[in-house]
Amino acid sequence: MSGEGGSLSAGWKRPALPCPALSLPRLKAFTCCCRVGDGRAPSTDTMAAAQVGSVLVTGSNRGIGLELVKRFLGKPNPPQWVFAACRDPEGPRAQELRSLAAKHPSLALVQLETTNEESIRAAARKVEGCLGGSGLNLLINNAGIMRPCTLDSATAQEMLEVYATNLVGPMLVTKAFLPLLRKAAQESHQKAMCCAKAAIVNMSTVLASIEKTPETYFFVPVISYRCSKAALNMLTKLQSMGYKEEGILCTALHPGWVKTELGSDQADLTVEESVNGIMKVLCSLSEKQHGVLVTWEGKTLPW
Amino acid sequence: MSGEGGSLSAGWKRPALPCPALSLPRLKAFTCCCRVGDGRAPSTDTMAAAQVGSVLVTGSNRGIGLELVKRFLGKPNPPQWVFAACRDPEGPRAQELRSLAAKHPSLALVQLETTNEESIRAAARKVEGCLGGSGLNLLINNAGIMRPCTLDSATAQEMLEVYATNLVGPMLVTKAFLPLLRKAAQESHQKAMCCAKAAIVNMSTVLASIEKTPETYFFVPVISYRCSKAALNMLTKLQSMGYKEEGILCTALHPGWVKTELGSDQADLTVEESVNGIMKVLCSLSEKQHGVLVTWEGKTLPW
Repeated sequence: MSGEGGSLSAGWKRPALPCPALSLPRLKAFTCCCRVGDGRAPSTDTMAAAQVGSVLVTGSNRGIGLELVKRFLGKPNPPQWVFAACRDPEGPRAQELRSLAAKHPSLALVQLETTNEESIRAAARKVEGCLGGSGLNLLINNAGIMRPCTLDSATAQEMLEVYATNLVGPMLVTKAFLPLLRKAAQESHQKAMCCAKAAIVNMSTVLASIEKTPETYFFVPVISYRCSKAALNMLTKLQSMGYKEEGILCTALHPGWVKTELGSDQADLTVEESVNGIMKVLCSLSEKQHGVLVTWEGKTLPW
Repeated sequence: MSGEGGSLSAGWKRPALPCPALSLPRLKAFTCCCRVGDGRAPSTDTMAAAQVGSVLVTGSNRGIGLELVKRFLGKPNPPQWVFAACRDPEGPRAQELRSLAAKHPSLALVQLETTNEESIRAAARKVEGCLGGSGLNLLINNAGIMRPCTLDSATAQEMLEVYATNLVGPMLVTKAFLPLLRKAAQESHQKAMCCAKAAIVNMSTVLASIEKTPETYFFVPVISYRCSKAALNMLTKLQSMGYKEEGILCTALHPGWVKTELGSDQADLTVEESVNGIMKVLCSLSEKQHGVLVTWEGKTLPW
């Protein structure tokens, strides 16, 4: 659960017994991970991730998206470009991004409304201009929304709006940035697929696992969200089929249940804990995770 | 693959080697099945299905939907009511349905445009009136569309239109008929879940199986269709969770690759062969298939 809008806390009560699938035990290992500015030596995984030359994160003004931007900037060997895309980089909700940009010349803020095709095209042009002929290595489709929505309350409008943001948005963004991802794949010296070469990471959720629905349904039905994200899992698999020959890695990622606006403050994980795991997973992604739904801990989830 | 619109033949070439997942061996057993008016004794399965008191089929003016209507009418012990729903029961494409209605007083044609909420509400009122206080046993959400659509060609409008018909439509139809399905479940003497008690059957497809995508992708990408039907599989699972306590069976069904307008004349199965299998499957559905994707042969498909 991640993204730009919606909240689990609005209208939902946590059941007395937390759902076993969502309340994953927090790994003690997390406490040993390198965090931005904590002064400790970076882990091997963090070093490996240093090879990513450029990354774009959608929905980057808060929550997991913002933390991903911070981590990439804080790496010992950061990307040449970190593109932080969000709806309104000039608005009050992007204050933290603007402060970061003032300190980091490699951070470019990009206006991108994932349901607006003109905005997406303009964003791709801006990113292409910054890259000056190079490709984009890593696209993280993180922007998404979740609304409280039961089988009883679901409306056509809500189903379509959530699908537009969570499925159509990532599809359009990927299409717009595909030429830059292809360029990165062609330019790369890496033979094997990986995030340092060219990769699309679609932010999904365990709630989109049809197989695991019995473990999570009564905790949080969110019909519109689940249907849109199950479709996003399908899109990821289709992209993995369509882009494999070009060497572009495609993976769907479950970030855990995270204390964000979307995940609510009742969630299991802090943003930092989740993104610690995600950064390690990004470093280790290979053909094995191509067309696969993986968790922030690197485990495979069933569809 | 089934439904009211679109065609596999438009813009698609069948590869030299047919896809193994779609060219299922035709079971010789099919030739022994009872067909409408063929004079042979009905099979045990067909007899069992006799217990369905009322059934509604959407997208019933042609293809699989029309054949389902014929089979229910032709049963040795047919339902008291067969509701054949389609967009335009007065139009030229519903001629065969009108001919059937002239011969079968138990067949009621129902105007139902699955993307029009007023039309759905009016259809539910009409069906409720016919049933005169009884419930509806079986709802078959068969209406659907498929459009040629690749990762390159997919547009926002197309993704949303196909989702509206293939996911939102069945969701709205189910919501509108739920009170009648609940009534049927409450009235029934059947203890176990089955189609004779109360059931929702959502027409899905093997193309919606994310797991099986590698077997089918290069044969027919149909991105918008696959994403919408993967979401429909999720909706079926959610419905199976939400309606289990009320005794309403919920199943997603893959009808095979069928020679319909949607499946094209290159398909493996005739409509009759597919519906032979589907009728047997409907008869045998039980809690085992609740929240499951099953084929016209009764086999379980992975999500």
